[in-house]
Amino acid sequence: MKLYDMELSGNCYKIRLFCALLGLDCESVAVDLFKGEQKSAAFLQLNPRGQVPVLDDGGTVVWDSMAILVYLAKKYGGESWLPGEAEALARVMQWLALSENEILYGLARARVIKLFNRPGDLAQCQQLGKAGLAVLESRLANGSWLAGDGPTIADIACYPYVALAPEGDVALDDYPQVRQWIARIQALPGYVGMPGL
Amino acid sequence: MKLYDMELSGNCYKIRLFCALLGLDCESVAVDLFKGEQKSAAFLQLNPRGQVPVLDDGGTVVWDSMAILVYLAKKYGGESWLPGEAEALARVMQWLALSENEILYGLARARVIKLFNRPGDLAQCQQLGKAGLAVLESRLANGSWLAGDGPTIADIACYPYVALAPEGDVALDDYPQVRQWIARIQALPGYVGMPGL
Repeated sequence: MKLYDMELSGNCYKIRLFCALLGLDCESVAVDLFKGEQKSAAFLQLNPRGQVPVLDDGGTVVWDSMAILVYLAKKYGGESWLPGEAEALARVMQWLALSENEILYGLARARVIKLFNRPGDLAQCQQLGKAGLAVLESRLANGSWLAGDGPTIADIACYPYVALAPEGDVALDDYPQVRQWIARIQALPGYVGMPGL
Repeated sequence: MKLYDMELSGNCYKIRLFCALLGLDCESVAVDLFKGEQKSAAFLQLNPRGQVPVLDDGGTVVWDSMAILVYLAKKYGGESWLPGEAEALARVMQWLALSENEILYGLARARVIKLFNRPGDLAQCQQLGKAGLAVLESRLANGSWLAGDGPTIADIACYPYVALAPEGDVALDDYPQVRQWIARIQALPGYVGMPGL
């Protein structure tokens, strides 16, 4: 299994983390985003969106972190990481949606503005990210994990950019439940970190 | 089944459309976003994110359009709308991800800036939206539907804000494959439209 990867990308890290938790061997192929390798003709053949991560599992190529998490969970992870029953599956999807919205366009974008000097409205991103953190905080006051009784890919999808939020100048002091959830994830057997965590 | 709904929201329309295609009865409960009803204490009990759509299916409450589509497909739609096999499911998820990113933060946001005078960088949203349209165009040059051989919830999730793109001053003239796909969706048995379509 090969992962087209970038070390500082939280979206790529989701896949590295999930592979580590599942005990899957995955070779990392570095893509230099600063040189624009993700927009090369060869890379666009793999992913027409020109983004990392991309997974190549013996010729089955899947792009997008959310789609890759679903693929790995379904193929290698089993029901506990991604349940098949309608309501339980919808609970996971709710938090995947949060990871693609408040977290990605709020917390992750605030981080790239601060860390990589990207253009964007920092205050607006921070505000959106905090709205997402407030939703997580209220959920985690009523359960240890986002969807169901144990960890699912919902937790894996939300975790990286939440834990990295301070790099976008969003402190986690006001979110004690979120900080405890971060600690629970970091205590999972097989856990690996990334720079900044 | 009850849908907390707003007529002009493309995200709400995804659910009305999918219910119509599945032949499901769904009562629409109007939420007045302009009056801020979605941020009331009662509504936040239903959805902590304070957004429509929210589905109440006999007491099972699901928020977020993507999660609701997955719920309805799994419970009432069957394998053709949302396959269970890992790779086929990942193909659907790839396009759900596009619907939450280039389409929602590009095309849909350009539309609310133009239509409802919301703040935001119109040119940047249009550019992101066009990047999404280009990806759709290349996919649809190689298949009639986004994921697999027939319509799935991937098509339902991407369709509304793509078809409404001209309301955000993004013309579809340069995307003939996308326009044919729009026509295919509009020809599905049970199809219903929304204002602007």
